[in-house]
Amino acid sequence: MKREMAKELSEKIEERIMLKGWIHRIRTLKNITFIVLRDESGLVQCVAGKEISLDGISNEAVVEVIGIVKEGKNSLNPYEIFVESISVLNGVIGELPIEINKSELQVSLDTLLNNRVLSLRNEKENSIFRVQHILVQAFRSFLSSEGFTEIFTPKIVAEGAEGGTALFKVDYFGEKAYLSQSPQFYKQMMIGAGYEKVFEIANFFRAEEHDTSRHLNQFTSMDVEMAFIEDESTIMDLEQELLKFMMKELNEKGEKYIEALKIEIPIVEEIPRFELREVKEILKNNYGKVIDENDLDPEGERLISKYVREKFNSDFVFITDYGRECRPMYTMPKGENGTKAFDLIFRGVEITSGAQRIHEYNMLVQNFKDKGLNPEDFSSYIETFKYGMPPHGGFAIGLERFMALLLGIENVRKTSLFPRDRHRLVP
Amino acid sequence: MKREMAKELSEKIEERIMLKGWIHRIRTLKNITFIVLRDESGLVQCVAGKEISLDGISNEAVVEVIGIVKEGKNSLNPYEIFVESISVLNGVIGELPIEINKSELQVSLDTLLNNRVLSLRNEKENSIFRVQHILVQAFRSFLSSEGFTEIFTPKIVAEGAEGGTALFKVDYFGEKAYLSQSPQFYKQMMIGAGYEKVFEIANFFRAEEHDTSRHLNQFTSMDVEMAFIEDESTIMDLEQELLKFMMKELNEKGEKYIEALKIEIPIVEEIPRFELREVKEILKNNYGKVIDENDLDPEGERLISKYVREKFNSDFVFITDYGRECRPMYTMPKGENGTKAFDLIFRGVEITSGAQRIHEYNMLVQNFKDKGLNPEDFSSYIETFKYGMPPHGGFAIGLERFMALLLGIENVRKTSLFPRDRHRLVP
Repeated sequence: MKREMAKELSEKIEERIMLKGWIHRIRTLKNITFIVLRDESGLVQCVAGKEISLDGISNEAVVEVIGIVKEGKNSLNPYEIFVESISVLNGVIGELPIEINKSELQVSLDTLLNNRVLSLRNEKENSIFRVQHILVQAFRSFLSSEGFTEIFTPKIVAEGAEGGTALFKVDYFGEKAYLSQSPQFYKQMMIGAGYEKVFEIANFFRAEEHDTSRHLNQFTSMDVEMAFIEDESTIMDLEQELLKFMMKELNEKGEKYIEALKIEIPIVEEIPRFELREVKEILKNNYGKVIDENDLDPEGERLISKYVREKFNSDFVFITDYGRECRPMYTMPKGENGTKAFDLIFRGVEITSGAQRIHEYNMLVQNFKDKGLNPEDFSSYIETFKYGMPPHGGFAIGLERFMALLLGIENVRKTSLFPRDRHRLVP
Repeated sequence: MKREMAKELSEKIEERIMLKGWIHRIRTLKNITFIVLRDESGLVQCVAGKEISLDGISNEAVVEVIGIVKEGKNSLNPYEIFVESISVLNGVIGELPIEINKSELQVSLDTLLNNRVLSLRNEKENSIFRVQHILVQAFRSFLSSEGFTEIFTPKIVAEGAEGGTALFKVDYFGEKAYLSQSPQFYKQMMIGAGYEKVFEIANFFRAEEHDTSRHLNQFTSMDVEMAFIEDESTIMDLEQELLKFMMKELNEKGEKYIEALKIEIPIVEEIPRFELREVKEILKNNYGKVIDENDLDPEGERLISKYVREKFNSDFVFITDYGRECRPMYTMPKGENGTKAFDLIFRGVEITSGAQRIHEYNMLVQNFKDKGLNPEDFSSYIETFKYGMPPHGGFAIGLERFMALLLGIENVRKTSLFPRDRHRLVP
């Protein structure tokens, strides 16, 4: 007998079918028991008369139900099952540590994460990672159709892409090695290798001590790099079209999860672009807020986002022309102190840093020195710029942070399946 | 002026166009210079009269060429460019360490890997990772369409999925941690979390000291796990259909790379399945080879593959019913000493291990003990089996090894962009 899914019963009315799944809820009346079964597709009520044996049936037990499909009268599902038999495939041992069958889990963040396998059975928590699936497929599918090649770069490295700070140390057969913070050097090297357009979605690692709702020690980076660009605007154009496609896909394929999470998908059209000096003016004139010449602080990000939301009806804004001292050593300079760098701010928080990169060897070496770094510590990266590196640039989106902002979730730990932070190494 | 690509000139005859790319080869005659330009799409010959300035033009320099498209007379490309101007976007500093413009790079493996960015510009080396791109997109696209969810699991872990051997140590804020060897525990936990069907493609790490052509210390694992299976045959059926789809996609989208690599794509139909005891008989009767009751050695894998190739015209063969002592502690037992485990052998080498897993808590705890492991060291994994874990199973394909066998490449280091081995941490 073939297994049917709870939400795909419309063609099965009056048929005898088999369902498999978890017991979501049990309500026992005098002569009848209502059992709500949950499988990956959703919920369905199963009605068992008192002649049906319910041995071992308890919330979250895994069962096989055989019964007849009937038109139902409840809001869970237009159909219900008149049970002929129900058997336990795998029961529950002891007390459940949390209650799963609520629309909102009434537990602390720590309890939620300590009981991750159970908390993920809750529809809302579960939907977060269904959305993630849609987003990452859309990211790859858009870039593949634009001729990009997916790459897998080293996660164990000898050199840190950010100049040696916040690195996890690995004992590599007695040699000094680190966990990679970003595919930055390698994605640029792939441009030098003639791939012209590359992307990677992978986990990277930052040994940051601080413990905020915005930081994870293992995060998922969605990285893009592209050769023969005009300047950073080519990259912003690309990111804008990519985000448009991702939101379109989410709308088309994620209806069920959007509903469960009660979220509003942002509309992506022409994303406004402001130079940092324009932002400075806007913040001063509209909010009396004075910012630094070279960089934007979190409050500044919130305010410019609010401004753009009100004036341009956009949840996104690109900020360009950041100062040189606030940008990494591989960023292409512009003018005396500027750079061809940009950030993308989404609902008040930065989700992307991007830029045109330096492609000229001597300029790169000088820039490393200007930042107080020894180019010899980065030789396998820097050497590649000697042999024909085209003009190029790229960006990265932090997946967990983007999802938290998209889904209105206050802490990035909830948008990571098994988050790693200062205090959390299990589960 | 918009950039055109070398292999997309058929609509541009007699037009003035711009190309950008690398200088692949230069041949200077008395009054004329032939310059072969290479971009991501391929090669095209550019013909420069002696009035054209060629300052800074050398092999592998990055240039912009403006010229008129003409019908050509050479085998590289049906078109060629009459150069009007050529300018260097980024030149070459010093001597090139290797010659790239050969059909086969005439260098040792070490030289090839030490100069990875340059060696990847060679068409054959380059094509390897174009094939990889097609394979991984096909893997995800097949599984997504079958309702699987992509997951990102922790790469820094407190417990090793293989019982503590060959683990890289990480200093995690002073705590003892390891690099993950496999998403095994976490993909099973995702089954327990109600996702029913999951996959991951990610880098994992094995601190194996040995230095063979088949092992990497960082490798790319393509993992699949699925709930509510009948037994391990559900998993083999799935893998067979997945491989069929991947080979179909490679044939359809990879023609250019298949040609460059001169490879034969295997035909996947019904993959023969043999129990280990049958393999034992076949090897004894056909090759006089005696194997162990519980496991197959590399020579046995080669011989059964040869047999199946000759008798069934298949490059693939599933071997089932391995002995319990040779399989991990989470493998579902079968009969007295057997398991519901299988391997997939491809062209003489194992590329997949798979199995139905144990889903029952007490059996799992006992099996850990039987293998000499302390269940308490794995508590965050084992605990999840108390609360309704469905019957499930899965498999993993090692991407680099699969590609090496598929492409007829003798060493897996060549199917990893930047391989990590006992002696190699850069580039």
